[in-house]
Amino acid sequence: MGYRILEPADVPAYLHARGHWDDLDDIRVREVSDGNMNRVFLASNAAGTRGLAVKQALPWVRIAGPSWPMSPERADAEARAYEQVAGVAPDKIPAIHGYDADNYALVMEDMSDLEVLRTVLNEGAPYGPDTSRRIGEFVAQLTFATSDFGMPSAERKALVAASVSPELCKITEDVVLSEPYIEHEHNHWHPELDDLAAEFRADTRLRTEVADLRHTFMTSAQALLHGDLHTGSVMVGARDGAPVIRVFDPEFSFVGPIGYDIGLYWANVLVATARARALGTVTDHAAQLRLSWEGFESEFRRLWPTRVDTFFDDAYLDRFLRRVWTDAVGFAGTEIVRRIIGFAHLTDLTTLPDPVPASRATLRLGRQLILRRTELHHPEDIENLDAADTADGIRASQV
Amino acid sequence: MGYRILEPADVPAYLHARGHWDDLDDIRVREVSDGNMNRVFLASNAAGTRGLAVKQALPWVRIAGPSWPMSPERADAEARAYEQVAGVAPDKIPAIHGYDADNYALVMEDMSDLEVLRTVLNEGAPYGPDTSRRIGEFVAQLTFATSDFGMPSAERKALVAASVSPELCKITEDVVLSEPYIEHEHNHWHPELDDLAAEFRADTRLRTEVADLRHTFMTSAQALLHGDLHTGSVMVGARDGAPVIRVFDPEFSFVGPIGYDIGLYWANVLVATARARALGTVTDHAAQLRLSWEGFESEFRRLWPTRVDTFFDDAYLDRFLRRVWTDAVGFAGTEIVRRIIGFAHLTDLTTLPDPVPASRATLRLGRQLILRRTELHHPEDIENLDAADTADGIRASQV
Repeated sequence: MGYRILEPADVPAYLHARGHWDDLDDIRVREVSDGNMNRVFLASNAAGTRGLAVKQALPWVRIAGPSWPMSPERADAEARAYEQVAGVAPDKIPAIHGYDADNYALVMEDMSDLEVLRTVLNEGAPYGPDTSRRIGEFVAQLTFATSDFGMPSAERKALVAASVSPELCKITEDVVLSEPYIEHEHNHWHPELDDLAAEFRADTRLRTEVADLRHTFMTSAQALLHGDLHTGSVMVGARDGAPVIRVFDPEFSFVGPIGYDIGLYWANVLVATARARALGTVTDHAAQLRLSWEGFESEFRRLWPTRVDTFFDDAYLDRFLRRVWTDAVGFAGTEIVRRIIGFAHLTDLTTLPDPVPASRATLRLGRQLILRRTELHHPEDIENLDAADTADGIRASQV
Repeated sequence: MGYRILEPADVPAYLHARGHWDDLDDIRVREVSDGNMNRVFLASNAAGTRGLAVKQALPWVRIAGPSWPMSPERADAEARAYEQVAGVAPDKIPAIHGYDADNYALVMEDMSDLEVLRTVLNEGAPYGPDTSRRIGEFVAQLTFATSDFGMPSAERKALVAASVSPELCKITEDVVLSEPYIEHEHNHWHPELDDLAAEFRADTRLRTEVADLRHTFMTSAQALLHGDLHTGSVMVGARDGAPVIRVFDPEFSFVGPIGYDIGLYWANVLVATARARALGTVTDHAAQLRLSWEGFESEFRRLWPTRVDTFFDDAYLDRFLRRVWTDAVGFAGTEIVRRIIGFAHLTDLTTLPDPVPASRATLRLGRQLILRRTELHHPEDIENLDAADTADGIRASQV
């Protein structure tokens, strides 16, 4: 059976044929494609008591069309990541009902009752008490289980081999970890950031530090990552009165440095904070970086006694977590920078009435995170830097 | 066609059938298996003007027999490594005439006119002017070409996936990078090293540093390595009056930290120096560590302008080479230690009339290399350490 691109009208028969839906008379389908890359369909019954989502990877980037071809095999990476997480953190991802490798299609939990975290934050609502801590735990659970601490050496090497993802990693290597620091047609920015963009391109120290992070991204095969853990990859809400979180879209998954997942989330936290400050809607923003790190660290330490390889001692764990921290700080910086002067920007900033002051302050913060990552040891160090850069950014924009 | 284990009597027909040898009336074959793992046959004609070697991987470790099974797929790793090197350093490996994946057999250059470097050194002869420099160049040529500097990102990820070598890496992870520091039935040592062996097992700082090197070995996918670059993996000699070097046996090849290959060679250099000192046969030993590093560094720097990814700048190269150096120092230390109190020892020391003083001094040196690797910046720093530890070792053994 070959690959065919599903249209909404195909979905009922598709779900029926694959055993996911019995009653073809009681199914309605709508397309809800939202991300850049893929198509997503929601199927539901008339009573609204049943729902399923179908996500299909196209052989191109959805928003660009066939002119930007991209292998649909990214869905394999996504299915593999979900499979790994399902074993260790099933409460933090959508339920996966089936993966159809022929059609690069996942049949999964309907999450239409939940909201994308970025949307929640952009609307001025708080994170809620558990969100960031649980995202930190998610990273710990996925990465511990797929590290040399949680997985026997031979099994892990098979995972490394199965999880190489040349095409999607290349996007990160280019778009996140080099283009913003050189002249590139992808880059764009608000005209009032011209000076900073030029400054960044001319900053040889910054370039070398980014090169270092980039090589870490390319060579440090620590654990299976989500690979794109921004606030648009997280759904939040409540069911039966209890908070619910779902981390989704792990199609950029590969075996890489753990700090990359954490850093990506931090960058989004810091950008959301900048937005909230600009709008005067700061709620629980300040605690989130710390909460996510605490969630990560405490869960990783909780899992440590279960490690399969006890040659790694407690003193090594401390050192390892310190390195993950330092990498995370640096990757957070690169993610901030690329979201302001690189290819793909964030609505957190672009939808501000005046995006300039927040963008300038955040961009400066990003640079500091990259350059000074080995000097920053605690979440408070980053908070202090953030406050200083914000003040600086506001001063500069007032000049 | 299935896999069959070749016996000497099978080799003529085998070479003939595969197109390597025309005249079946003029071929003689002898077995010259020497390493621990595989069988090697030499075929030659009566006039002695033609020779070929056939190396076959058995489904077990040769010296142990079927009681220690091991996948013959290690020959695939060897063939892959030779293929990579053939493109960049063909003058430093045996000519490969063919690889028969069904039978895990390589047909290759007859090197019976050359000598194993360890044998040369054990007999008191010098390295010769070019040996160590060319080994350093070999590492640079192989690793640059298979790093993210020498190979496009996507191609390299395919190489990483193809080159995972769970079974052989596990041997190194266990035998080199953990067993000597814990109680393990594999370990053995001269009774007069009891105190040091116990001290090493009790040294928690040492354990943590080795854990760090071990995790680097397991996760740092920098470049394709030889994987077992000791002086028994190098043949030297002269042909037509010119020096010849052949690095062989890359069956432990995998994508790992470049410092591992360099460090392994250094450990062998330092052990050979200890032997020569003990016997009073020191020749050109002192220069070899420096020469191999210079060979590596200058060749890597020479190749740098040809890099496929120019985002990596010159300042990053300096930093990268510094890290390779530091890793190499640490791995050299682990290789020394395991060769004296671990599973497989070296004839350099075991054949000394009194192996104890040299073993004690070298073991101490190994520990210092592991513990102080970030403080040692130049070959002379290691030479000084070596001299101090030797003096110390001799004093201690005289007490």
